[in-house]
Amino acid sequence: MRRVAILGSTGSIGQQALDVIRTRPDELQVTALAGNRNLGLLERQIKEFRPRMFCSSAKPDVACGGEYLSAEEIASHPEVDFVIVATAGRAGLSPTLAALKAGKTVALANKEVLVMAGEIICREASLHKAQILPVDSEHSAVWQCLHGEVDKADRLFLTASGGPFYRYAQSQLSQITPEQALQHPVWKMGRKVTIDSATLMNKGLEVIEAHWLFSFPFDSIGILVHPQSIVHAIVEYADGSLRAQLSWPDMRLPIQYALSYPKRWPNPELPRLDWSKIGSLSFEPVDYDRFPCLRLAVDAGKSGGTYPAVLCASDEVAVELFLNQRVDFTDIARIVRKTLEQHRSIARPSLEQVLAADAWARDYATRLSLGHYQQPEQRGNLD
Amino acid sequence: MRRVAILGSTGSIGQQALDVIRTRPDELQVTALAGNRNLGLLERQIKEFRPRMFCSSAKPDVACGGEYLSAEEIASHPEVDFVIVATAGRAGLSPTLAALKAGKTVALANKEVLVMAGEIICREASLHKAQILPVDSEHSAVWQCLHGEVDKADRLFLTASGGPFYRYAQSQLSQITPEQALQHPVWKMGRKVTIDSATLMNKGLEVIEAHWLFSFPFDSIGILVHPQSIVHAIVEYADGSLRAQLSWPDMRLPIQYALSYPKRWPNPELPRLDWSKIGSLSFEPVDYDRFPCLRLAVDAGKSGGTYPAVLCASDEVAVELFLNQRVDFTDIARIVRKTLEQHRSIARPSLEQVLAADAWARDYATRLSLGHYQQPEQRGNLD
Repeated sequence: MRRVAILGSTGSIGQQALDVIRTRPDELQVTALAGNRNLGLLERQIKEFRPRMFCSSAKPDVACGGEYLSAEEIASHPEVDFVIVATAGRAGLSPTLAALKAGKTVALANKEVLVMAGEIICREASLHKAQILPVDSEHSAVWQCLHGEVDKADRLFLTASGGPFYRYAQSQLSQITPEQALQHPVWKMGRKVTIDSATLMNKGLEVIEAHWLFSFPFDSIGILVHPQSIVHAIVEYADGSLRAQLSWPDMRLPIQYALSYPKRWPNPELPRLDWSKIGSLSFEPVDYDRFPCLRLAVDAGKSGGTYPAVLCASDEVAVELFLNQRVDFTDIARIVRKTLEQHRSIARPSLEQVLAADAWARDYATRLSLGHYQQPEQRGNLD
Repeated sequence: MRRVAILGSTGSIGQQALDVIRTRPDELQVTALAGNRNLGLLERQIKEFRPRMFCSSAKPDVACGGEYLSAEEIASHPEVDFVIVATAGRAGLSPTLAALKAGKTVALANKEVLVMAGEIICREASLHKAQILPVDSEHSAVWQCLHGEVDKADRLFLTASGGPFYRYAQSQLSQITPEQALQHPVWKMGRKVTIDSATLMNKGLEVIEAHWLFSFPFDSIGILVHPQSIVHAIVEYADGSLRAQLSWPDMRLPIQYALSYPKRWPNPELPRLDWSKIGSLSFEPVDYDRFPCLRLAVDAGKSGGTYPAVLCASDEVAVELFLNQRVDFTDIARIVRKTLEQHRSIARPSLEQVLAADAWARDYATRLSLGHYQQPEQRGNLD
């Protein structure tokens, strides 16, 4: 019986993790649930799963006999074997570190954790012999592709649906409304990651995440635009042979794979590919120029230091401003770029330095959008 | 240093195997070459590789110091580690058995060996702890897909280009000339296998081969028509996830993979997939009804006994008759079906019984095409 803690149980990934866990009552036990603002849902989850521990921003109104603890206490608790980090943004950073230091297996869905602090996270995992299992569909796919031939691959490709605007002309991009951007053609996800998918920032964050998860140099990680989202990643070997992972786009599969690994569980609720309905799968190398967030992300990853933390923080601010109709769609990249340009990165930062860079970038990006620091030529764009 | 014998070195696969071996002089040594009718080419190969042993239908006119032996003697020789069986038809059967009984690793490109005598071959391999490595592109692909997760797959798909006539109407099929049928859209292969690709008999033989190589029941082996021939096989796991193998269609890759396994060797001569040129990959379930050879083959495989040997033998006769313009393209399936219908199969046959069934079927199919045994309604078709 694997004792599972879910951090972010009320979010999209958290709820789907519980869907998977419901199908395996003999293998999986929910030991802890941690939510944030959606207290009503957390209370219903606590009533159903009766976890030994829980955590939320406000104390939930349920009598389940469980213990109210911090996310870090849950992540490192002796009665937890397996921690699903399904939080968003920097919230996952500290509990992930706590889990790794306690030698737990961490199923990581919160991509900012590795983007912001990849070096620290990987060092702690290695020191404490803790495993990090990817939950993102693309990274789960890379992991599945590499399985059995980990050391022989010399290149990997993440696929990208391209989001709803991949065929838009440059001039159309600034007119995009939040409502349009929240309609992702394939995946149903949270708001932040849906906007990040539309700007392709999400794919850039995934490249950085893949770099840390699989120890691939940035120049060996390619991106293929594949609108059907059936092939999730492809790995290329030294002899030119490639292995790809395919599945119907459904996040429950990568979640279950992390939970079942190294086994694979049959699950009738998971959709099967129906080849009579697939038709064609198309692939093309991504256009870095039309979606500047992608290049900004990959460059921040290559530069390392505190740049990726600044990337994440400024993007989070910019996306929030866009969702509140304070800036245009194309301003997201401008805010991120200007913040990165103004940042003085620290090489091999400590966790405190990462968090300080994050705080600085949030402040800078917010002020930038309010009209501070603007050069005359940008004023029209950012205000 | 791996000591390699190539049976069928002057054929298409044999020549490409030598192409691969030329690139790895430090790992691979040609110890034996066996050709058949193309004596001039065999002599040139003997001059270049100076094998310790050779074999051919006539004694080659070269003074290389090598020893003239039978294919069986070569396949089981103590100075041979690795036998590439690149012969065609039943010619590979006896040397393959000799190699397996001597515990050699056999790289098998001659699909009739497993189709005709799968049970015998697999039993001998298991008894003598000899490995059979697939060299066919689809089977190499299945092997690569399964690598690391052999036991967890519950379904596999072989892809088929569909050959040159997949979109033809039924009425057009009888008009096809040998010249048309010898133009395969993707693969450059020998004449027999090219015609088998056009009738889809080849895919049926591959299903039987896959059944024996990977121990999959026939109902778990699907066929997808994929005209671009980039994806060579797909394996489906219990959780609905699939792994696929992709590469530019080039037989040197599966040949090299068998030679390098469990390593993968970089080889600049092997083409890399260029994603900017791929565009779309299409897939559809195969239409069993329009290409009756496919159904005949799969049914013969399911029925087992000596049926698959009769299938191979009658097909070989029918293809030869078609190439000599003695019968129509659509007569190939008719000859095979009638021969199978008249056959009395023996369950769990011995090698002698397999060879007797082969001889019977060749005789029956030949006589059938000459007008013997004909029912009035078939006379117009088969004569």
